[in-house]
Amino acid sequence: MRQVDLNCDMGESYGVYTLGADELMYGSITSANIACGFHAGDPSVMRSAVRQAIAHGVKIGAHPGLPDRMGFGRRNMEVSPDEVYDMVTYQIGALEAFVHQEGSQLHHVKPHGALYNMAAVSPALADAIAHAVYAIDSRLILCGLAGSELIAAGQRIGMQVANEVFADRTYQPDGTLTPRSADGALITDSQLAVRQVLQMVMEQQVMSAAGTIVSIEADTICLHGDGVHAVTFARELREQLEQHHIIVQAVSANL
Amino acid sequence: MRQVDLNCDMGESYGVYTLGADELMYGSITSANIACGFHAGDPSVMRSAVRQAIAHGVKIGAHPGLPDRMGFGRRNMEVSPDEVYDMVTYQIGALEAFVHQEGSQLHHVKPHGALYNMAAVSPALADAIAHAVYAIDSRLILCGLAGSELIAAGQRIGMQVANEVFADRTYQPDGTLTPRSADGALITDSQLAVRQVLQMVMEQQVMSAAGTIVSIEADTICLHGDGVHAVTFARELREQLEQHHIIVQAVSANL
Amino acid sequence: MRQVDLNCDMGESYGVYTLGADELMYGSITSANIACGFHAGDPSVMRSAVRQAIAHGVKIGAHPGLPDRMGFGRRNMEVSPDEVYDMVTYQIGALEAFVHQEGSQLHHVKPHGALYNMAAVSPALADAIAHAVYAIDSRLILCGLAGSELIAAGQRIGMQVANEVFADRTYQPDGTLTPRSADGALITDSQLAVRQVLQMVMEQQVMSAAGTIVSIEADTICLHGDGVHAVTFARELREQLEQHHIIVQAVSANL
Amino acid sequence: MRQVDLNCDMGESYGVYTLGADELMYGSITSANIACGFHAGDPSVMRSAVRQAIAHGVKIGAHPGLPDRMGFGRRNMEVSPDEVYDMVTYQIGALEAFVHQEGSQLHHVKPHGALYNMAAVSPALADAIAHAVYAIDSRLILCGLAGSELIAAGQRIGMQVANEVFADRTYQPDGTLTPRSADGALITDSQLAVRQVLQMVMEQQVMSAAGTIVSIEADTICLHGDGVHAVTFARELREQLEQHHIIVQAVSANL
Repeated sequence: MRQVDLNCDMGESYGVYTLGADELMYGSITSANIACGFHAGDPSVMRSAVRQAIAHGVKIGAHPGLPDRMGFGRRNMEVSPDEVYDMVTYQIGALEAFVHQEGSQLHHVKPHGALYNMAAVSPALADAIAHAVYAIDSRLILCGLAGSELIAAGQRIGMQVANEVFADRTYQPDGTLTPRSADGALITDSQLAVRQVLQMVMEQQVMSAAGTIVSIEADTICLHGDGVHAVTFARELREQLEQHHIIVQAVSANL
Repeated sequence: MRQVDLNCDMGESYGVYTLGADELMYGSITSANIACGFHAGDPSVMRSAVRQAIAHGVKIGAHPGLPDRMGFGRRNMEVSPDEVYDMVTYQIGALEAFVHQEGSQLHHVKPHGALYNMAAVSPALADAIAHAVYAIDSRLILCGLAGSELIAAGQRIGMQVANEVFADRTYQPDGTLTPRSADGALITDSQLAVRQVLQMVMEQQVMSAAGTIVSIEADTICLHGDGVHAVTFARELREQLEQHHIIVQAVSANL
Repeated sequence: MRQVDLNCDMGESYGVYTLGADELMYGSITSANIACGFHAGDPSVMRSAVRQAIAHGVKIGAHPGLPDRMGFGRRNMEVSPDEVYDMVTYQIGALEAFVHQEGSQLHHVKPHGALYNMAAVSPALADAIAHAVYAIDSRLILCGLAGSELIAAGQRIGMQVANEVFADRTYQPDGTLTPRSADGALITDSQLAVRQVLQMVMEQQVMSAAGTIVSIEADTICLHGDGVHAVTFARELREQLEQHHIIVQAVSANL
Repeated sequence: MRQVDLNCDMGESYGVYTLGADELMYGSITSANIACGFHAGDPSVMRSAVRQAIAHGVKIGAHPGLPDRMGFGRRNMEVSPDEVYDMVTYQIGALEAFVHQEGSQLHHVKPHGALYNMAAVSPALADAIAHAVYAIDSRLILCGLAGSELIAAGQRIGMQVANEVFADRTYQPDGTLTPRSADGALITDSQLAVRQVLQMVMEQQVMSAAGTIVSIEADTICLHGDGVHAVTFARELREQLEQHHIIVQAVSANL
């Protein structure tokens, strides 16, 4: 039997600012990446997100980002591997305290935004993140772009990894995502998006924007928590996966 | 045999900004309160402070503060008990990750600046802090102003506490510190400061500014890490304590 | 002929976070208080808010707050008059640069949240704000709680002031607002709220929660820019004011 | 008669953190670049720096940086031209308010750190900065790396520019600075540094690290305000310039 995880970024509100339909998404997903206060989130938002995840039986991951709240962690910054090692450690530790207080356990770590993208292509930053996570708890699952440097870095030190794929992004012949700036980067038809996911999960393949078939590992699917159709699409995707007898559950950790 | 702990706030640098003669102070103290990134410190500074403390065999405490870097956490803020519970949790968790990565254990928690002062007089904030610390690790020692509400809050839930006293501040007949704004608040003569400490540790008494004798618990003495005479005074005090056969060591945790 | 200003806090979004139905409110109001980047707003949001205000012919005010984004500037902080003088100067200057670049002029200053409340009762903080504003441009209108210390501070140095009243808050016999924590603090019936405004503007009186008649100056009415009924209420109030032959326009500055 | 300006970054302290020997440097320099609260500085530090500059008769420039206090604005960030236009506007406006309150006038703008470096090579970012400055006050002098894109951007819109050169950095045959990471990037011998400055000012030439002669405009020399020899070197350089009959004064603005 095939299985796949559905993950979504959660706890991205901040102070009076609300972002994402967290409460509605929890019903469809199996793991939550909770922001840790650098690019989004704050201590009270983190507590609340951790409680929601536990209440819904959803696995909790840390979602550390760059120290750039104004840019929501989406602007690349020239940070050194040492800086990344330390900022990831800080954020995971902060989230873990809430998780432990609430009686649960941290399950995975997925970097956010620009940090995710930089770690996908920079072996040095990927190593920094993988080692930081591993040094906190060697059983944590490292989640990154499928087939990226971050996945390779985790595998080099024997970590359990989760290859992440996207339902609404097209892929290039080399297996990387079509840049958002390029034509045809986004899949706006939800049926096509579902079909792409099914192909990735069931056949470990994706058809590239150029029409070629590309091999891909799909351990977890990234869902978006905001936008008008986010909640509907999440439900639709989960339903379709289950109808195709794919078990929707979090990646099993060696805990 | 009497014993006492010498503690100092450490890791208060930030980015390019250096504060405190940390490296020089480590030789004299037995426990370090490390800033956690809200009022001072940053991930790299925290890592470095943790490593220094371990290298010098000094016990490590978390030193959480208010989210007010510009004011160095010294300005009172109208924060709710829930907000305090969460911001303390966040900061302790962040520091603990570094401590664990570096192979050591967190030993105590001492709030910083305005948070320390507010928790000394507000039972609600004191409870919030005590419960947050206890929920992270019930063996952590809670350090607060001797005889304050924070100490009482820790004792109510059976925590091990450390009553903190000051070498260079005068006390009032009710056992509280003379406010800094009042005349005679500070003891600038280092010999007098040493004598006050010896009296507090050996006789559990302090002579108030009014000349009356006040009972006081002195589990740990707060040393300052900056200022021209900080390092010299720390050495002198430790020497005097040892000459009076007082064991200078961290408060023993039930770890 | 009576006249009154309708003001609303604007530009409170931040990065990816959106707050307030700014675009919809601009049609009903005559002056906008634009956040300056401390409690809310950022440079891009400020530019956009300034442009919108100009496009709608709405007067622009600076809305400086405490440096507490996480608390949205609503938590009292123990700041000194000097600190307030400087932080208000900084924020007004920042906003003024956008206003000048866009070819307009700053019209008034209204402190935000906790700063507004503290300045309403503290003569020292009120003086700090009034003098900071006056030293930037003596023609700026100082907007504060009707009859408060901030209004008095402005009047002491000969500034033009704008007494602000609230449609949806009840008043106490001494003319101050019923604290939000007390019963009956809020007027939820929009017809009652409109009636209170009409009484304040036309008769310079308000009926207190205790049923007594209190004198009040009502130069400007504070409208809220978020909440489900904000836009509707703003339109309704403006319509009612105009039907009662009250001129709805910004306070005239001596510019 | 030749003339040159000596500039130094000032007001880089923050809260309790002190950086730079500002008070000692003011005696040697003719223009001060004052940090504006993003990478360094805060409202109180800015006020104090402005007052010092005025007291010493030193021209005041705004020194805007990236929103990265932890990295002191030294880490490149992927910011868009629009973001830069707005963040520069914000910071200049904030500083200008202090300058006006203290009865003086802003003289120039020099971006800081990573923003300076990015604007030296990116025409788009250079244009954003030049246009932002020009739109605030077309008489402001734009200061950037000699011969860089920022200088070109200022010249394109008819601004007065100040080409900045470095005493302690070596140049490459194409007129750019040898990267700090390369061997021989720094001139540590103060006599050699003085000689390089004299050559640049008197002959508008510099000998590159490769031994070739390169043309260079030297309107202003960047001095460092911290480090053990900063103050001594500044005095020595100024003395040498004056002995060579070079007028040391700020670039004349068309004010």
